[in-house]
Order: sequence, then C-alpha cells, then structure tokens
Amino acid sequence: MWTATYVGDRTISLREAEPAPPSPGQVQVEVAYVGLCGTDLHILQGHLDARVQPPAVIGHEMSGTIARVGEGVVGWTTGDPVTVMPLDWDGTCPACVAGHSHICQHLNFLGIDSPGALQRHWNVDAAHLIGLPRRLRLDHAALVEPTAVAVHDVRRGDVGSGDRVMVIGGGPIGLLIAVVARHLGADVVVAEIDPLRRQWVAGAGFDVLDPSRDDQAAWIEQWTGGAGADVVFEVSGAAAAIVSAIDLARVRGTIVMVAIHPEPRAVDLQRVIWRELRIIGARVYQRTDFEEAVALVAAGVVPAEQMISTIAPLAATAEAFATLEGGQAMKVLIEVGAEPAADAAPIAPTHQ
Amino acid sequence: MWTATYVGDRTISLREAEPAPPSPGQVQVEVAYVGLCGTDLHILQGHLDARVQPPAVIGHEMSGTIARVGEGVVGWTTGDPVTVMPLDWDGTCPACVAGHSHICQHLNFLGIDSPGALQRHWNVDAAHLIGLPRRLRLDHAALVEPTAVAVHDVRRGDVGSGDRVMVIGGGPIGLLIAVVARHLGADVVVAEIDPLRRQWVAGAGFDVLDPSRDDQAAWIEQWTGGAGADVVFEVSGAAAAIVSAIDLARVRGTIVMVAIHPEPRAVDLQRVIWRELRIIGARVYQRTDFEEAVALVAAGVVPAEQMISTIAPLAATAEAFATLEGGQAMKVLIEVGAEPAADAAPIAPTHQ
Repeated sequence: MWTATYVGDRTISLREAEPAPPSPGQVQVEVAYVGLCGTDLHILQGHLDARVQPPAVIGHEMSGTIARVGEGVVGWTTGDPVTVMPLDWDGTCPACVAGHSHICQHLNFLGIDSPGALQRHWNVDAAHLIGLPRRLRLDHAALVEPTAVAVHDVRRGDVGSGDRVMVIGGGPIGLLIAVVARHLGADVVVAEIDPLRRQWVAGAGFDVLDPSRDDQAAWIEQWTGGAGADVVFEVSGAAAAIVSAIDLARVRGTIVMVAIHPEPRAVDLQRVIWRELRIIGARVYQRTDFEEAVALVAAGVVPAEQMISTIAPLAATAEAFATLEGGQAMKVLIEVGAEPAADAAPIAPTHQ
Repeated sequence: MWTATYVGDRTISLREAEPAPPSPGQVQVEVAYVGLCGTDLHILQGHLDARVQPPAVIGHEMSGTIARVGEGVVGWTTGDPVTVMPLDWDGTCPACVAGHSHICQHLNFLGIDSPGALQRHWNVDAAHLIGLPRRLRLDHAALVEPTAVAVHDVRRGDVGSGDRVMVIGGGPIGLLIAVVARHLGADVVVAEIDPLRRQWVAGAGFDVLDPSRDDQAAWIEQWTGGAGADVVFEVSGAAAAIVSAIDLARVRGTIVMVAIHPEPRAVDLQRVIWRELRIIGARVYQRTDFEEAVALVAAGVVPAEQMISTIAPLAATAEAFATLEGGQAMKVLIEVGAEPAADAAPIAPTHQ
C-alpha cells in the first residue's frame, strides 16, 4: 500500500509499505479520506520534530471502513463506517485518575506521536473507534474530528442560547466553533483578517469583522448594548487577538483559548480582575464531543460541502499541503483510496 | 471632628471638619477602627489620582456603631454595631442588570471614589450597612472587609475540602485567603519572599515556601503526587508569580487573579491550553461574602489578634502609613475615636 510519510526537511514522500495484520484488540481501517490541518502543516514545517520522528505517517482527521477485525475485538464488523478519536491515554497519570484522560499527562496522539491515517490500511486499537451512520458520506465524515474540537471548545465556553459570541479567527476551527455556537442558539460574529476566509465565513451566514479595518470595540459595544461579548473564542494565534479578547468580553465573560501561541503573550490581567473575566484553555475533545460531532455532521449542521475546498489523491499530498500553506483552502482532504499516478495533482478547488 | 485627609503630594493631613447630619436614607456611623490596606497606600503614593480627588477622606476597612439614623431608614437603631460594604452601584449598567452589581461598570467605591471612613462621623446610605454581633470586638471587626475579599476570592476559585491550594503572596489578603481555604477543608501552602511575612504566615500554622530559595515546582510535585495544585491564588502582584501560577496548577486547575498587575504580564497561554487551565479574575465581594466574613471573624476563624500588628490613633495616620509602607506590619488599624494629640505616634507593634 502507499503511505504519505513525513521524512523531515519539510518533505512529504509517497512511500510503499506492507500492510500489517491488526494485532489483538485492534482493527484495520481502510482509510477513505484524511483532512489536513494546521497541526499537520506545523509537522511538515518541522515545528513538531521533538514529537514526530521521521519517517512518520501522519494524519488524524479521517474516515474509513473496517477492513479486518483483530482477535478479541467485539462489537465491530468488517464494512462498518468509522472514524477514529486519535487519543491514547495511559489511564494512570494524575490527570487520567482525575477523569481528564483526554489531556493525559503522557498523551499519545495518533498521527503525531505515533503513526497516522495517511495510509490505505491503518491499524488502531478498537477503543479509539467512533461509529458513523451509513448514510453519512465519508468525505463529509472527515470533518468529524475538527467538529469535535469545536464542540469541545464551545462546551468549555458554556455557550448558551442567546449568548453573544465572538470568534477571533475564521479558519476551519473558527468557522466550526461559530457553526456549533449558532446551533446552540448563540448570536455569533467572526473576526478574520484574510479576505478569502472572510468570504467563506460570510458565505456560511455569519457577520464578519476585519480587525485591520473595522472598529471592533465600537461594533461589539453597539451589538451588546455596552456590555461586551458573553464568550470570546481566540482561534487566531495572533498576539493582538489576546488584547481584543480581553477588551471585548463583558463583565464575568469568558475567553476560550483555542489557538496555539508558541510564545508567552502580554495579557492585561488588570482587566481580567476588573471585569472578573474567566480565561479557559481548551484542548482536543472527549468522547461525548466526538459523538456530538458525528451527529452535527450527519444532520448537515456543519456545512461540509462548503467547507471542503479541495480533495486530492494520496499521491498529491505534498501539493495539497502547498495549497493549505498558501491559504487558498478552507479544508483540504486527501482521498486515500484514489489510485496514485505519476502526474497526480490536487483536483481543482471546488470553492474559493 | 477630625479627619485623616489625603491632600495629594504623598501627604495625609489631620483636618478638622463639621459633621453633617445624615441625609434621608443614610445613617451616621461613629467610626471605631479603620484598617489601612494596599489600596490606601496606592492612593497615598498618588497612583490613584485619576480616581481620588484631593482633599479626600479615605479609608474603607472599618467598624463602628450607629450614631444617628436618617429619615426613612428602617431596621437600624442608634448603638447598633456595624461595618460598611463600601460598594455603591448604579443598578442600571449591563453588569448590574446581569446580576453582577458588585462590579458595576460605574462602581463608586466608598473611601476611593467618594469620602471614606477616616473620620469620626461618617454618613453612609443604610443599604451599605452590615450588622455585627454585639460580642464581636470592634478592632477585630475592622478585619471583616479584607476577610470578605478573601471569602470572595476563595468562592471564585471553587475551593473544596481536600483541595491542595497554593497562595502566592503572604500579606494580609494572602493570609486571609489561606485561612478561609483551610476553613473549607483545603490543604494550603503559602509562597512569600519577605522573611517577616513568612514568619507571620507560619505562625498562623501554614507551610510557607520562599520563592527566592525553595524549588517550588519540586515541592508542589511531591505534595500533589505529580498532579499540581488544584487552585493557585496570585496575591503578590509579581510578574514571576504569574509564571509560577501557570506552571504549578494541575490539569484543569484554577488560577485566581487577586493582586493588582498594573502592566500586562507575559502569560504562557500554551500551557493554559495544554492543561485546560482556568484563569479567574476576582474583585471585591458580594453581600454574601461580607456576611460570611462577619461569621468567620466572630467565630475566631480569622486570627485577628495575631494579624493586627499596629493600632494607631487618628492623629498618627501618616506615621501608620509609613509603618505599612516599610513592610513592618501585617494589618495596621487606626483607632478613629482616640483623642488626637500633638505628639501622637503609632503605638508599638504588638507582633513583629
């Protein structure tokens, strides 16, 4: 079988590998689609070399069907459509013992810390499987993992009906957070500096601000009758976004930190005290989030068709990453089952 | 009557003033004791000149008895021992409407934004009164206000029995937070760089760390079995304390911001996400906190006798501030009823 393998030096190579049979307790998933995300791009750029040892098959947003069932696995059958919750915890660290196994102190993240889904036959422990409804298209199902991130973030923010929610950063996760919050009855505005992303977010029916031009404070002030936003999601990674998030939240408001900030950021803690703000960290998801994400994608709440801007065959994974890096895509999927060809290239984006 | 008045230029002056009768809805409190706190010191140092217009009678940690009852006031009688919750909200701003009137967007803080307690006869709206048990000594009762701060902070931190709590900063508020958390059944350690304060905190029965010498990370690691502290209170105002607070909290742990940080601080937001931490701002108190504080001081849970290191007459307020500024005191009280004398000076500290 073919694999898309990170070999270091900013390079993804197509490599051939012999599929192994599933070990006891495992299933072999025939991978259909894999979404590429910002973390995958960070891996390719070498930023995660401390965790990812090349050569490494990466990829963790996926859908597929069960091809083989290993010894001792019950409840799963060949042909079942599935996705994988890519978290492997030790179950013994203080975080696991306290019930927070999704952020185990020694978490093994499949596709980062151990082999991922960019291969036709992927063996995973049956404990990681999440069943999919048969009517759910497998390309759409590749959005379940990022949707689970959004469901978790929104849950961490205690978003409720009628809340006024601001999402800073209109990439795939920002848009999904906006979608999930709106589904709960919140009013949502998204701030995004990139014009193409603003267009996509507006196309999904959201008010969109341009932080480089709009007076966000005045906009939020008017929108909320002088109160400020109930919940602000920081999904941009920009230092300036931290300043905005703190400034624009209401008294006793919540700021949910989602984006990666590799360096410490200047935070106005005086404002945090003055308004009794709450800053909440949100990371990955729990099983309940994944199950809710399946339901939201299957019900069409997530605008999957609009979000998937590119589908490329496995052989064109490198080019697909280039598309992602160039900012010309919302969600890029790799069709792992597509036949590799020497002259393969990403198919034309369906939405730009 | 005599008043201790901030006249600008780092100066507190003893001034004579004619007591006014209480307006309708007000009572006239005969002030017994006033505690001096860090905020009062900031006023004297000129840091709050944007809010405090000299000449201004300051002071907001107090005890006294009702001397006169104004027209239309019911439920209060001359001679009743009282303290004052010094918060005056507008009741109409978005924060008030949402039920957070204690942090009204236009809060008038008595003793900062309007006249305070460093005068023998203080007229206040009856709505601000908190009754005291008659058996409670009025010098001890001057600790009710800072105790209410601590009760509020601990409540904001959701501290529960068995929690491992770290308090960074061992001044009066830090010590009171430690006392309140311990009373709820928490295990508490306090970090404090000043040796005299460490001695006071240890004298109240707490483990104390010296951040300048002790390996706090190793200590917390061992204390919590590798988990980290459940709740960390930042009561020091030091930039380094923010780093420690974020580092030493457990997965899903809480950091309560109490101290004033006049400048933005570098915060490791990556760690906030990685451990799904929660940073909570805590400011002043609500009526329930004040009532709980009265109960804790009256029951002797608060070690009032040990905490009051200096009691000075009103005439020696300036010298009392100097004692406070020099770090040679835990809690300094002004005995407002004491006769002013030309050669007055603070009485000798009872604990050092």
